[in-house]
Amino acid sequence: MTKPLNIGLIGFGNIGAGVVRTLAEQSDLINSRLPRPLVLKTLCDKDTTTRRDAPYDHDKLAGDAAAVLGDPEIDVVVELVGGLEPALTFVRTALERGKHVVTANKHLLAFHGAELMALAESKGVGLLFEAAVAGGIPIIRALQQGLTANRIDSVQGILNGTCNYILTRMSREEGVSFKKVLGDAQKKGYAEPDPTYDIEGYDTAHKTAILASLAFGMDIRFEDIYVEGITAIRPVDIVYAAKLGYAIKLLGIAKRDETNGSVEVRVHPTLVPLSSPLGHVNGVFNSVLVDGTPVGKTMYYGRGAGAGPTASAVISDLMALAADTGGFNAGRDARLRIKVGEKKLKPMDELMMHYYVRLTMADKPGAMATIGRALADQEISIESMIQQGGEEGEAQPATISIVTHRCNEARLQAALKIIEKNAMSMAKAFVLRVEE
Amino acid sequence: MTKPLNIGLIGFGNIGAGVVRTLAEQSDLINSRLPRPLVLKTLCDKDTTTRRDAPYDHDKLAGDAAAVLGDPEIDVVVELVGGLEPALTFVRTALERGKHVVTANKHLLAFHGAELMALAESKGVGLLFEAAVAGGIPIIRALQQGLTANRIDSVQGILNGTCNYILTRMSREEGVSFKKVLGDAQKKGYAEPDPTYDIEGYDTAHKTAILASLAFGMDIRFEDIYVEGITAIRPVDIVYAAKLGYAIKLLGIAKRDETNGSVEVRVHPTLVPLSSPLGHVNGVFNSVLVDGTPVGKTMYYGRGAGAGPTASAVISDLMALAADTGGFNAGRDARLRIKVGEKKLKPMDELMMHYYVRLTMADKPGAMATIGRALADQEISIESMIQQGGEEGEAQPATISIVTHRCNEARLQAALKIIEKNAMSMAKAFVLRVEE
Repeated sequence: MTKPLNIGLIGFGNIGAGVVRTLAEQSDLINSRLPRPLVLKTLCDKDTTTRRDAPYDHDKLAGDAAAVLGDPEIDVVVELVGGLEPALTFVRTALERGKHVVTANKHLLAFHGAELMALAESKGVGLLFEAAVAGGIPIIRALQQGLTANRIDSVQGILNGTCNYILTRMSREEGVSFKKVLGDAQKKGYAEPDPTYDIEGYDTAHKTAILASLAFGMDIRFEDIYVEGITAIRPVDIVYAAKLGYAIKLLGIAKRDETNGSVEVRVHPTLVPLSSPLGHVNGVFNSVLVDGTPVGKTMYYGRGAGAGPTASAVISDLMALAADTGGFNAGRDARLRIKVGEKKLKPMDELMMHYYVRLTMADKPGAMATIGRALADQEISIESMIQQGGEEGEAQPATISIVTHRCNEARLQAALKIIEKNAMSMAKAFVLRVEE
Repeated sequence: MTKPLNIGLIGFGNIGAGVVRTLAEQSDLINSRLPRPLVLKTLCDKDTTTRRDAPYDHDKLAGDAAAVLGDPEIDVVVELVGGLEPALTFVRTALERGKHVVTANKHLLAFHGAELMALAESKGVGLLFEAAVAGGIPIIRALQQGLTANRIDSVQGILNGTCNYILTRMSREEGVSFKKVLGDAQKKGYAEPDPTYDIEGYDTAHKTAILASLAFGMDIRFEDIYVEGITAIRPVDIVYAAKLGYAIKLLGIAKRDETNGSVEVRVHPTLVPLSSPLGHVNGVFNSVLVDGTPVGKTMYYGRGAGAGPTASAVISDLMALAADTGGFNAGRDARLRIKVGEKKLKPMDELMMHYYVRLTMADKPGAMATIGRALADQEISIESMIQQGGEEGEAQPATISIVTHRCNEARLQAALKIIEKNAMSMAKAFVLRVEE
């Protein structure tokens, strides 16, 4: 008889129920692929009364995490609590006690990932987190195994389904406001009652921290990332971007600068060419585009959230542990090690790229001259421009949307400051970055 | 001192040179990720004189495969010879002698995959083939590891860059013929001087056999697959498909029938909705769409051929062997086993789907009635139709393109036979299948 892999699951909500359900529904398939069975020994949640939509034995449901962490027979802890504490304590305790950990907690990893990976390695156990980024898409395995022979040059991802749903709707229904679509998304359950975490880009930044750390072997944390959400995007931006051949997507971006090895890591709404593979990723779907040498560009697409996709990822990690193919043992591991505290970040000021700028100017002679002069003084040239004037004879301001040629971010910001100080400027400039 | 992984490479052409070059260029990165070094001990090719574009020691280049197969110090054989023999003998011999094998040879695996996998397992060694399907895209690992908790419901892939390049060009330049684009592709090196293997769908079928075998755990071989190439596609088909919201792609398709567990495996040009993720995969790129339970749809995209992508895949397999994370050891393996000879295939006659039919009819009263009656007699109804008549007053035939509602393939073929026998039919009916 082979020893089973005994599992303790902490955090028995919607995702936990999906894991338990899938383990039951796919048990034949799972067991046929494994040399030893997966056994769900203990479930744990503060709420021990609500009946979950999954087949489980109520006697296995404990109210205190000690029932899992204190049980020497439990080999692996599945942490689905989310957030920093008490999840951090649970994961640390499990690793310190020589238990493997499988987690979907991007928030925790974006703050403590390198430290926890080092702890796992020192204890000779696995810390697996396929479910923490892009749901069911096996992007962590792609970076750690499938692309492991490559130098990664960049990773760009549409990592938040809520934001992508909102931006897709705004691109399909001309003129519909952000606020209106957000309300609809909340009604449909695609956005939380408090949507801040998603729409301000924090969720995307947590996932980007994990991808960037793995791609470059650096200890890149949430605090290292420039983050901008999607709340300031107006229908006019979507329309103008489309006219210029772009979609607007909230991207998590991590790029290595070949000249000095520094890394830029940023989350912001981005103009993506409609001809790029990310340009057609619509609705609640996620997608990650990886550029590596020698593989070139590869892309990974699927559902980034939900009980089914997350269960697929969590159980693939459990199966890797049961089969010992996860590469978690010290010295038997084909992946980059992330050294705690080690990183080389590129300041945002040093970015060189194309920019989309929306300016609101008095609809009078001289407005264009003002803009043109301010940009020229910073050696920024204009690639394309669309102006939408006010109604004939009315004193409406004109909206001017510009895409610049490649230029430096600090210089662009300097030029925009000059324009904003001009009497003809009627509102703060709105800037979006462009990825070609 | 850890023992290195000694590699013998057989078949030192363009792909082999890419592997050797990448091993040299990425050696720091590769070694930093591995507990033991990869050592290229022997290269082998019939041609021992041509200088390859890669850094290698000419003394290591042998003309006879025995220099690799007969060397007990070689741990892993990289087979890049291609085709059936002598590659089959090389791979068999290597496995029988307890050597791991890494191969890019889809042709060999489409004929002998299950048998060779069983041999590898019985010898306790690995047979890894990430490079055999879709080049640098880690689709084999996705099926075997990332999605291993899923029941796979279907796999659909754009697996041949030559065909996708030709079809993309035909969709972008209205009216350009297949022959003209093929000629251009040959000039650019995107198509071989003898393009049969690509344009008749054989290459796609080889890769589809591998994907289907892994997805369903069946011994599905080239001979089990219905194969149709792209040579009969005319500009009118591309134009009409686009008007109806579809792109035409050569797909390798493998689908499980939930009702009885049978599997349909087929390769043919297919109408793919422009709203589907495969609809926007253009040029020489490859893409594989996998539908699984509970993960839902995931897609994988990248370059399907070329020295760089192939080297990325081959070396990822070598690194998995060196790190022992490849899941090749008996009993430590989270993947489906394929039983030799075991399969349950669904006959093409039983297909139920939407069809695109192009008919060439005399431009006279009664043509539409003939078509309508023949289809109605087989209980096939029309979803949409476009007719392009001959010039006014001329005796040109009319081209009629129809998309049917979901219907049975045998019934469609019966209806088309009736139509073709009618005096008004001017040419054989041309059928394309539609994937929604």
